[in-house]
Amino acid sequence: MLKCTSCGREYSLRKPYQRCECGEPLELELFKSVPGIGKRVWERFSQFYPFELDLEYSLGEGDTPLTKAKRLSKELGVELYLKNETLNPTWSFKDRGTFIGIHRALELGFNKIGTVSTGNMAASVAAYGARFGLETYILVSSTIVEEKLKALEVYGAKVIKVRGDYGGLYYRSLEIGQRKGIYFINSDDPFRVEGYKSIGFEIAEEVTPDYVVIPTSSGGLFRGIVKGFLELKESGLIEDLPTFVAVQAEGCSPICKAFNESRQKIERFENPHTIAHAIENPYPPSGNAVLRLLNELKGLCVAVSDEEILEAQQDLGREGIFVQPASATGIAAIKKLRGRIEEDTKVVSILTGSGLKTHSQMKAVKVMECSLESLEECMG
Amino acid sequence: MLKCTSCGREYSLRKPYQRCECGEPLELELFKSVPGIGKRVWERFSQFYPFELDLEYSLGEGDTPLTKAKRLSKELGVELYLKNETLNPTWSFKDRGTFIGIHRALELGFNKIGTVSTGNMAASVAAYGARFGLETYILVSSTIVEEKLKALEVYGAKVIKVRGDYGGLYYRSLEIGQRKGIYFINSDDPFRVEGYKSIGFEIAEEVTPDYVVIPTSSGGLFRGIVKGFLELKESGLIEDLPTFVAVQAEGCSPICKAFNESRQKIERFENPHTIAHAIENPYPPSGNAVLRLLNELKGLCVAVSDEEILEAQQDLGREGIFVQPASATGIAAIKKLRGRIEEDTKVVSILTGSGLKTHSQMKAVKVMECSLESLEECMG
Repeated sequence: MLKCTSCGREYSLRKPYQRCECGEPLELELFKSVPGIGKRVWERFSQFYPFELDLEYSLGEGDTPLTKAKRLSKELGVELYLKNETLNPTWSFKDRGTFIGIHRALELGFNKIGTVSTGNMAASVAAYGARFGLETYILVSSTIVEEKLKALEVYGAKVIKVRGDYGGLYYRSLEIGQRKGIYFINSDDPFRVEGYKSIGFEIAEEVTPDYVVIPTSSGGLFRGIVKGFLELKESGLIEDLPTFVAVQAEGCSPICKAFNESRQKIERFENPHTIAHAIENPYPPSGNAVLRLLNELKGLCVAVSDEEILEAQQDLGREGIFVQPASATGIAAIKKLRGRIEEDTKVVSILTGSGLKTHSQMKAVKVMECSLESLEECMG
Repeated sequence: MLKCTSCGREYSLRKPYQRCECGEPLELELFKSVPGIGKRVWERFSQFYPFELDLEYSLGEGDTPLTKAKRLSKELGVELYLKNETLNPTWSFKDRGTFIGIHRALELGFNKIGTVSTGNMAASVAAYGARFGLETYILVSSTIVEEKLKALEVYGAKVIKVRGDYGGLYYRSLEIGQRKGIYFINSDDPFRVEGYKSIGFEIAEEVTPDYVVIPTSSGGLFRGIVKGFLELKESGLIEDLPTFVAVQAEGCSPICKAFNESRQKIERFENPHTIAHAIENPYPPSGNAVLRLLNELKGLCVAVSDEEILEAQQDLGREGIFVQPASATGIAAIKKLRGRIEEDTKVVSILTGSGLKTHSQMKAVKVMECSLESLEECMG
């Protein structure tokens, strides 16, 4: 049964419902079960999914490292862990959601899938579409950079640049998909959310966090991780929930704005602008759902500036991990919360995607130059 | 004890010996032991390493997916598995060697490390240098592209562009390192080789391959994987060795050339030119060592053209994996060996590094463009 996250209206699982008539996103009810054994998170938590997963088609998504941050832990006075989602098959967390989303599409009998994205999700859906042998449509904004198109083309998806209001494309794609028999696994699809809850499972297998810090754009990732922890609690596998922290960029923070103004609904964020393009969604389709979770669970919402993001990206580099700007927002937020987060608490920050995807954005570097002959002296 | 791979001369482990006086690379003797339990390959095979590994500093290198190639298996009539090394912390296999190499440097008391590289190894050493808090020197060719420098800068390494013969830099760096107290973990350092043998261990844990296909440049990776299998055999953990296939680009194939001409020594490959830059080493420092292994173990050496490489890169994209050109050479080689590799044999191809590292090289893509209003019709 799919249930509306807002009005509670129920929908049958036998049809491709994705959003409620009231406009809000749907979600599967909480699973209450026991974990099993296995090398893969999909095996250990197979009882938390509504269908059997075909691991023959897996590309190795999930089961990413949880790395203790050495320097930042010291600097910030907390026990900081980095959930490194850059080590997924297309180098972002999206692969978990795509893998589950495709199972949903196949269960319903679809042989065409699609998504609306200009970044991580586009690559992920294109890759898994190829893997599963499905016709795959990737709708991108007409302003997409050439570099990203190249990384998509190799997977053989049908990539279509769409001129016009990019925000409207999310809803339009769902309509077109219904008529054309294409299952659009967009950012906050209920089954994408099911995929992301595996991040919560994996974290809880290794540590008992006091805070989980989540870069938040559409809201799908946030909802997924929270749902994972809720299911663990419901199943008696953990005692307490961590405090969930949604992080946005100051230049595009519709959820934090509504949260801080104690409103129940987000509003479109006008003139969004941030270097953290992966979380630059001015009107997130799960924005209200995230707001509800933040209120119910006493979460926090923190907005960080581009400057703080770039500094945090360098901080993570010094831990040995190169992330894209959106993934550094978590660290920027933790720095901002200094004093508010108690000392020696366990904090997990989600690193959503690889820095290799965005280095064309970074500023040029000045390096030393020496001749081979004078190298030794030149090195100083 | 370190032993010369050619003349057999022995060197103490207490000093930072890396190459024999005869010019050939050194290597640790074969470990003969039993595996243990653990989530990480470093735990399961801890008895196959000469020192304890500090997993607190690990970034999650190794334990990469072995993915069955769906389409290519059918097309090529073999059971093809892809060892996906693009899911390492800096998105190439180099991280395994760097992790072990740094342990060696620390064991010897060094607090400075370095490497000579323009690609995967540079990023890897820079990242782990940061992780371990060591002063890190990355010597790059003065022709390095800006994009790669940006991906290095974030780790905070000292990057030095060196004008002059890039090939000579490998040897020069070892000399300078000795005088300046910098341990250069170059491409075929004996302990880098120890790191790579974990790839062999992991493969054998999942399948019993008939062929293992390895993109080969300096020779460090090839030597490492072979050593892994030799140790498993020595330890009675496998019965037979697979056939090892070294793959090079036609435009830079000093090892295949010598092998096919039945010579015992490689010669510098003049005017190297290939799109597979990661394996474009005209005078590989472990070239002769690889030749010896190919001869002793009845291996194969296959050179593939740029055109074949690009086709194979697309083939892998259709399996859902985006690799750099060097990583596609294995598939190109297997295609070339059709008829020679028996049907239904198990073949493992090593995918060495992520395609995201090289997409500036790829040619521009032509995609469809539609307006939001006419999107449905436009999609056809």
